[in-house]
Formats: sequence, C-alpha cells, structure tokens
Amino acid sequence: MKVLSIVGHSKAGKTTLITKLIPILKNYGLKILVVKHALDFEVDREGKDSWRIFNTGVDVAIASKDKFAFISRLGDDLDEICSIFNFYDIIITEGFNRACKDRIVVLREPDEIENFKCGKILAVVCDKDVEGFRTFKLNQVNEIAKIILNWFYEEL
Amino acid sequence: MKVLSIVGHSKAGKTTLITKLIPILKNYGLKILVVKHALDFEVDREGKDSWRIFNTGVDVAIASKDKFAFISRLGDDLDEICSIFNFYDIIITEGFNRACKDRIVVLREPDEIENFKCGKILAVVCDKDVEGFRTFKLNQVNEIAKIILNWFYEEL
Repeated sequence: MKVLSIVGHSKAGKTTLITKLIPILKNYGLKILVVKHALDFEVDREGKDSWRIFNTGVDVAIASKDKFAFISRLGDDLDEICSIFNFYDIIITEGFNRACKDRIVVLREPDEIENFKCGKILAVVCDKDVEGFRTFKLNQVNEIAKIILNWFYEEL
Repeated sequence: MKVLSIVGHSKAGKTTLITKLIPILKNYGLKILVVKHALDFEVDREGKDSWRIFNTGVDVAIASKDKFAFISRLGDDLDEICSIFNFYDIIITEGFNRACKDRIVVLREPDEIENFKCGKILAVVCDKDVEGFRTFKLNQVNEIAKIILNWFYEEL
C-alpha cells in the first residue's frame, strides 16, 4: 500500500483533481481509498440510531449488503489510519500536508509552493509555470495520472 | 477482541438496550465498536465533497482532529469487518443474527426465540419468562452488563 497526498490551499482544486483522476486510476484495477482532511464535520443526523449510539461514547459502524460506514473518534493520525486501512493499493489523501508524504501540489499562484515543500513532489498543478517542478494544468489529468501510475509501479 | 451480537426482531428494543449497556461497559475501560446492520442507509449528503468523491467509485474517509468517518463498499461480511477493526476489545453487533455469534436475544414474545437459536445465548431480554434461558427485563441493565463482563473476561 502506498500513500499519495494531494495538497494545496483551500479552493485550489484538490477535490476536482481527485474526482478526475479516480476514474483513470480505477481503470488500472487499483483499490483506492481517499482520505479527506476536514476541520470538522457532522458524523450523522441527530435522532438516528447510529447517532444515539455514537453519543453514548462508543464508535459506530453501519453495514448493509453493499455499503459500510464507520464513525469513530480515531482522529487524524495518518499513519494510524494507514495501518488500519492497509488493504487498499493506494491511499490518496486530500490535505495532510504536514504528514510529508509523496505529493502532488495544487497551486493558485507559483509562490504558494513554499508552503508545501516537505515530502517528494511528483508534480505541481498550476495555471502558471512553477520553476523547478513538472507543472501541469488542472485539465491535464491524463498526464498527471501517468505520473501517479509510474510512481505507484516503479517502487513496488 | 470478542464479538457479541444483540439480536431480536425490529422494534424489540435492541438499540435501547445497547445505549443503556454502553456507559456501564465503558466504565470498565473497554474499547467498544457497535456495528449496526441496516437494509440500506444514506452515506452522505448530495453535493458535499465526500459524496462527490464516493460517487466516482472509490471509498472515502474524512478525518478531523477528534473524529474519523469511513464510507465504503465493504458490505456486511461480519468476519471481514472484525478482521479490520480488531483493535477494539468488544465488537457489539446490532443484528447479524445469521453470523451465529455469541448473543443476547431481545424478544417481544417468548416464542420468537426460535428465530434466534444459533450461537451461544448468554441471556434473553423479554417482559415474560422464556423457558430454558436466563431472562431479564429491559430495565435490568446492570444484571445484563454483568453477564457480558463475565463472558468477556472468562475466556480471555
């Protein structure tokens, strides 16, 4: 299992890039989990059974024939998350800049790159050229996917 | 990690029993996951980023400092679920009758017991006595918790 981070400031286009990359990567048969970082989020709707149970202080999962949800107090320790969900081929993180994993950086302006220089930068996505990096536009998803596939297979 | 199922027909009081048991069991320092079986459920709200990503065909997790949610196509294979979430002390399932795990059966009427006779029955919860089983009322949570604690520690 390998971890790739898609990092960049808010509204730079991280989610859009991910949703465009997924269908291409899935065509290669890769089992992918996307882990999104959030400041806060609602776990469930008040009054539902799963909400009632979660609020007694335990973690909850809901399983149906084809879906499974897990709502917990696990938090955002990426290494812990990866050790639990190690049955995926690739874990793509949206955010988690500080975990310093191999990454693709999505920028609105070239100088923002300074905030994302930890971990190996596979590529930069920006409308303007960013010196010293392979730079792509947001619509060059096939080229970006190719870089990810090379990265995934080269070190296996 | 041990698995205990709370089984019984719909509306028999399974969720209520679980929400009453949890605070008692948590007092013993047990790390508990409740897995609820559902015919179907909504994974997320349309339009949200996590929903957009899930609908591209991949599994999604959302992590914040103190919460973690995982929305996937894992399905309802209990043994698979337990193998992933084996870092809990007890996995309490609501439903999953057919998995034949050790269980507490919640009944509205004594003769319903016939539908839940697979796996070891630790106790029965019913307003009327159920012949051949230790029977408790829904408000005897301390007694039921004691049975669960004995079951948990006896075979460790």
